[in-house]
Amino acid sequence: MSEQQKRYTLPEDQIPRQWFNIAAVMPTKPLPPLNPKTKQPMTAEDLYPIFAEELARQELNVSDAWIDIPEPVRNIYKSYRSTPLVRAYGLEKALGTPAHIYFKNESVSPVGSHKLNSALAQAYYCKQQGVTNVTTETGAGQWGCALAYAASIFGLEAAVYQVKISYNQKPYRRAIMQTFGAQVTASPSMSTRAGKDILTRDPNNQGSLGTAISEAVELAMTTPNCKYTLGSVLSHVTLHQTVIGLEAEKQMEMAGEYPDVVIACFGGGSNFGGIAFPFMRHNIQDGKKTRFVAAEPTSCPKLTHGVFQYDFGDVAGYTPLLPMFTLGHNFMPANIHAGGLRYHGAGVIVSQLLKDKLMEGADIPQLESFKAGLLFARTEGIIPAPESCHAIAAAIREANRCKQEGKEEVLLFNLSGHGLIDMSAYDQYLSGSLQDYIVSDEEIKNNLDQIEKII
Amino acid sequence: MSEQQKRYTLPEDQIPRQWFNIAAVMPTKPLPPLNPKTKQPMTAEDLYPIFAEELARQELNVSDAWIDIPEPVRNIYKSYRSTPLVRAYGLEKALGTPAHIYFKNESVSPVGSHKLNSALAQAYYCKQQGVTNVTTETGAGQWGCALAYAASIFGLEAAVYQVKISYNQKPYRRAIMQTFGAQVTASPSMSTRAGKDILTRDPNNQGSLGTAISEAVELAMTTPNCKYTLGSVLSHVTLHQTVIGLEAEKQMEMAGEYPDVVIACFGGGSNFGGIAFPFMRHNIQDGKKTRFVAAEPTSCPKLTHGVFQYDFGDVAGYTPLLPMFTLGHNFMPANIHAGGLRYHGAGVIVSQLLKDKLMEGADIPQLESFKAGLLFARTEGIIPAPESCHAIAAAIREANRCKQEGKEEVLLFNLSGHGLIDMSAYDQYLSGSLQDYIVSDEEIKNNLDQIEKII
Repeated sequence: MSEQQKRYTLPEDQIPRQWFNIAAVMPTKPLPPLNPKTKQPMTAEDLYPIFAEELARQELNVSDAWIDIPEPVRNIYKSYRSTPLVRAYGLEKALGTPAHIYFKNESVSPVGSHKLNSALAQAYYCKQQGVTNVTTETGAGQWGCALAYAASIFGLEAAVYQVKISYNQKPYRRAIMQTFGAQVTASPSMSTRAGKDILTRDPNNQGSLGTAISEAVELAMTTPNCKYTLGSVLSHVTLHQTVIGLEAEKQMEMAGEYPDVVIACFGGGSNFGGIAFPFMRHNIQDGKKTRFVAAEPTSCPKLTHGVFQYDFGDVAGYTPLLPMFTLGHNFMPANIHAGGLRYHGAGVIVSQLLKDKLMEGADIPQLESFKAGLLFARTEGIIPAPESCHAIAAAIREANRCKQEGKEEVLLFNLSGHGLIDMSAYDQYLSGSLQDYIVSDEEIKNNLDQIEKII
Repeated sequence: MSEQQKRYTLPEDQIPRQWFNIAAVMPTKPLPPLNPKTKQPMTAEDLYPIFAEELARQELNVSDAWIDIPEPVRNIYKSYRSTPLVRAYGLEKALGTPAHIYFKNESVSPVGSHKLNSALAQAYYCKQQGVTNVTTETGAGQWGCALAYAASIFGLEAAVYQVKISYNQKPYRRAIMQTFGAQVTASPSMSTRAGKDILTRDPNNQGSLGTAISEAVELAMTTPNCKYTLGSVLSHVTLHQTVIGLEAEKQMEMAGEYPDVVIACFGGGSNFGGIAFPFMRHNIQDGKKTRFVAAEPTSCPKLTHGVFQYDFGDVAGYTPLLPMFTLGHNFMPANIHAGGLRYHGAGVIVSQLLKDKLMEGADIPQLESFKAGLLFARTEGIIPAPESCHAIAAAIREANRCKQEGKEEVLLFNLSGHGLIDMSAYDQYLSGSLQDYIVSDEEIKNNLDQIEKII
């Protein structure tokens, strides 16, 4: 670790007052979501039964570039924001790179990740509308923790369906959700029609995000004053995360630099869009040439090996059809530790940006990600979440390129969360019992061949 | 949780440049440590074989009120300090108290607790003196993590002896230490004379802080360029922790208040002294009337039920004799979750202050501590370490007293660490499987009767 450290924080009055909606300035607007039955574009009203109305409107808003952050949300943001921007001198030194490496540290939020930025907004809009109960699904539990916390702040009851295998194998995050007062149910459960159907067919089903989404959506649709919330993929979730990049932009100014490359790990896209979009607007509007790199696992490579087409957001096919880079909604990724990156598709906006070559993907094997995370922990003193390790690995690739090319580029990545609840993963890495998972193009093609093609 | 939150942070140039040494202003100076063989006062030179020389000098310094923080240490402090001072509006509201409750949040350090404040200083002084290796003992692992981190920053090799039962039962903190590059050995081990002796007699010995201290001290004494470090109890450790209270003093000024009661949990005393001593100097020098409350577990109540006498700092009796409030160095506390508070004695300075009635103790049962921690998590959004739960419980007692008496007092407590690595304890509390442990005065008397009396 380096003795030399430099971090930049913003005064309270500099914390952003608006989120940035990149859809308003995109050269090609994203295609609309379609009703799976009629194949017609959906309106905000079509989404009201599931989502809070303001969130449904944000989801389809492609005209307003700036959306006001409600004052109650901004007040809670102030309790942990601005998050620090840090110059990673220790990592630079260890790599011997001429690159300047910066990271934005979202791990300092009270739930340990960036997820809270959207959970607070979603809980607020639900509360404002008179909703009393919120529900969601969670895998390893990072999103579930954030929603449990946000529900607690705004006086909502939270019901979280957690994938059964995680519920049993990762009791720490379940206990965190319960400590914040949430009701946590292992999915599939006997509490919903969807869960009963699955368990009747397969009593030992260990669950997946697909089963948990189905149960959470069903609960929202069958319970008065109850809305469903989601932790990534959707455009309104990414919108809320832009507070990260907007802060980082001001902090990079404090450091007297501007990024040549912006990097983030990629599950559904909200973490990536959160740090990338505020900088990307300067590429679109001001002729900047920053590169944007989304780091995904080789075990779930929708950006680097997927296909752009309409697909469902969930395994069961309950959601609207979304235009996305996808591996197929029936794709079952390997059980890597970066649970937040195990999603078959990319969000609508990000998919269009990738199609238009405004960003790029990088696929990272699991062992490379943990090697990068370990180096980061030892040089910068923060143990990164397995998801964030992918961003670090991508940043290290860029730093090594800069070394080879002798370029003093400025790299910025988002440290989306800490790994303190994931130490069993590090334990397994240190003991040599982890492995890589590479998905073949043939496997992906076979998978996609089973899906109805709309584009 | 409350929507209203207020936190105070200091600009970088306001981070303290000196630590405060209360020994220089105490009305009664602490008694000296004694050589256990000769019963004569020990000098700093006597401590050089075990500790870095500057630390040995700080340990016995009772004349200089202010000690400069070395610039390299202060530079690393800047990477996570100042830590926030937060007005706990949510907790106040839940209690319906007229008291103003503030907490200093040390859980934001990269290792999740205040322990780093001293680990950095100890590692720095070792490095400065040409030491290459440091060693220590750890129970649950909070101190071991801090030392592993600090050693990594200053380029030292760290060897940590962890109590065997914790090594096996709490693999997360062991994995954190290893991730930071430390060598971790379960104690008792076959790597030292002391460990071999224990295992020869009792092959299934599960270890204690006593066995781990003995092994770490032996390693330091038998290895060239290797020094021993300790996480609490000693005066120089508490000195380094005063950075907490010095910051809090400035932050309370920003809030326009001054504390009527300062509260901290109590293991060996460094966390308590860290926040209390800077305020206590105003009681001693400026006629302030602040009360200082040290919260200890009912299972290990040296302050409220112990006796002031010379005793050993470790179970095996290898250390100097220290004048302390003690339950006897042979006392074996129950296996509560607040591992950091399971220590038989109080530091030398704190013991003298308690004798002189400049502070007071409060003993908290385990269930009351977790009840307090859960309320804090749900009202303030931070899950506290089991140790810190004791401080919260004591603060709640004071807040309830203020309510009964109709007094608008200002309460300040130190949140020494977060509980994210201790979620199994919360899980057990939520499922009703935890219990209280109360030590009887007779048990304590019987224990002390077995010890040689010097005063």
